[in-house]
Amino acid sequence: MLRLYDHLSSGNGYKCRWLLTQLGLPFERVEMDIDTGETRTDAFLALNPNGRIPLLRLAPGDFLGESNAILRWLAEDTTFWPDNRRDKAAVLQWLFWEQYSHEPNIATARFWITHKVAMDPERIHALIVKREQGHAALKLMERHLTGRDWFVGQHATIADIALYAYTHVAEEGGFDLAPYPAIRDWLDRFAAQPNHIKITDAVGTPVPLADALTSEQRA
Amino acid sequence: MLRLYDHLSSGNGYKCRWLLTQLGLPFERVEMDIDTGETRTDAFLALNPNGRIPLLRLAPGDFLGESNAILRWLAEDTTFWPDNRRDKAAVLQWLFWEQYSHEPNIATARFWITHKVAMDPERIHALIVKREQGHAALKLMERHLTGRDWFVGQHATIADIALYAYTHVAEEGGFDLAPYPAIRDWLDRFAAQPNHIKITDAVGTPVPLADALTSEQRA
Repeated sequence: MLRLYDHLSSGNGYKCRWLLTQLGLPFERVEMDIDTGETRTDAFLALNPNGRIPLLRLAPGDFLGESNAILRWLAEDTTFWPDNRRDKAAVLQWLFWEQYSHEPNIATARFWITHKVAMDPERIHALIVKREQGHAALKLMERHLTGRDWFVGQHATIADIALYAYTHVAEEGGFDLAPYPAIRDWLDRFAAQPNHIKITDAVGTPVPLADALTSEQRA
Repeated sequence: MLRLYDHLSSGNGYKCRWLLTQLGLPFERVEMDIDTGETRTDAFLALNPNGRIPLLRLAPGDFLGESNAILRWLAEDTTFWPDNRRDKAAVLQWLFWEQYSHEPNIATARFWITHKVAMDPERIHALIVKREQGHAALKLMERHLTGRDWFVGQHATIADIALYAYTHVAEEGGFDLAPYPAIRDWLDRFAAQPNHIKITDAVGTPVPLADALTSEQRA
């Protein structure tokens, strides 16, 4: 069975949970405490040298990291991955843009605030820059979504999943979405899809971290 | 003919130039001055709302952004894109990792230094953080490359191209590569490939920016 190393409040983890659930794929879910360094232990670094969640175990001893690479893996032969070359390229463009221009600003601002990270003058300055760049990302999305229902093509793809993950909780990072009506309509459209789950829904079969790591060592 | 909007010292642009040359694809190249805002004019934002190079014109009025999405597009049906599903996923994992954990640290430090960006206390602090995170990225690469010739599989893929682009000029950003022998061997291996070009090689048919933008407006 697929096994997702995850953290419930992570939008990157939510992307994977959302698509696994949508596709009806059974999976185990291992909740990790990212504040206390559970992703930086030797036992976990042996599975993912990058020390991050989400991490998807495809088979014993075989792990895939990077949330958008996981989305792409899961979306194979589903409607969430386009069937023509040009739209595939457009989806990948959005996935790379999300990780470079959206997530480091909107998700990181939200993390610092919701995880109550200590604020020194340097971090306050960095937060101001992230606020500006996050709004630049939201403006670009607003412009693209004006007159469109989905980011690429005529139905939801993994580009929408990737961008929904942190946009729908952007207000937790101090981003007011009121000036972005096309984004708000798209968020509603996304959440109206059948079998939608919330970021707070702990789906999957829970497996305690210690049990999971013990089983990996046997693998 | 393909047309690449580019900036010669950009590693992200070099990725595209390198693969276009390697594949023997004829292309036009438009050099842009990123220091004087040429990528943020209304005329260029009409082509790429993200205001960045590299941007590849696939056909009149049809543009693809994000360097790694461009690599993936160009690599279709070539040896630079694996032929099996698991290796494809591994290549994408490295491409996302490069844009999230490598480029923002190593490339941005290099940009600030080589483009002589003004240093205030906040930027100096940010540079210290990028130096630490950049070395963490290099350590992860060193560990992965120890005992391997290429990032994924038995020959160069777009994962190697993406990671070569800024690693081979990391010293321009103040990163000493002496402690990374596996990386240095891999850099030599990469550069020994037939038809290799340097980041300073202005390949392609040069087209002045003004002429390019005029032709786009007619398209």
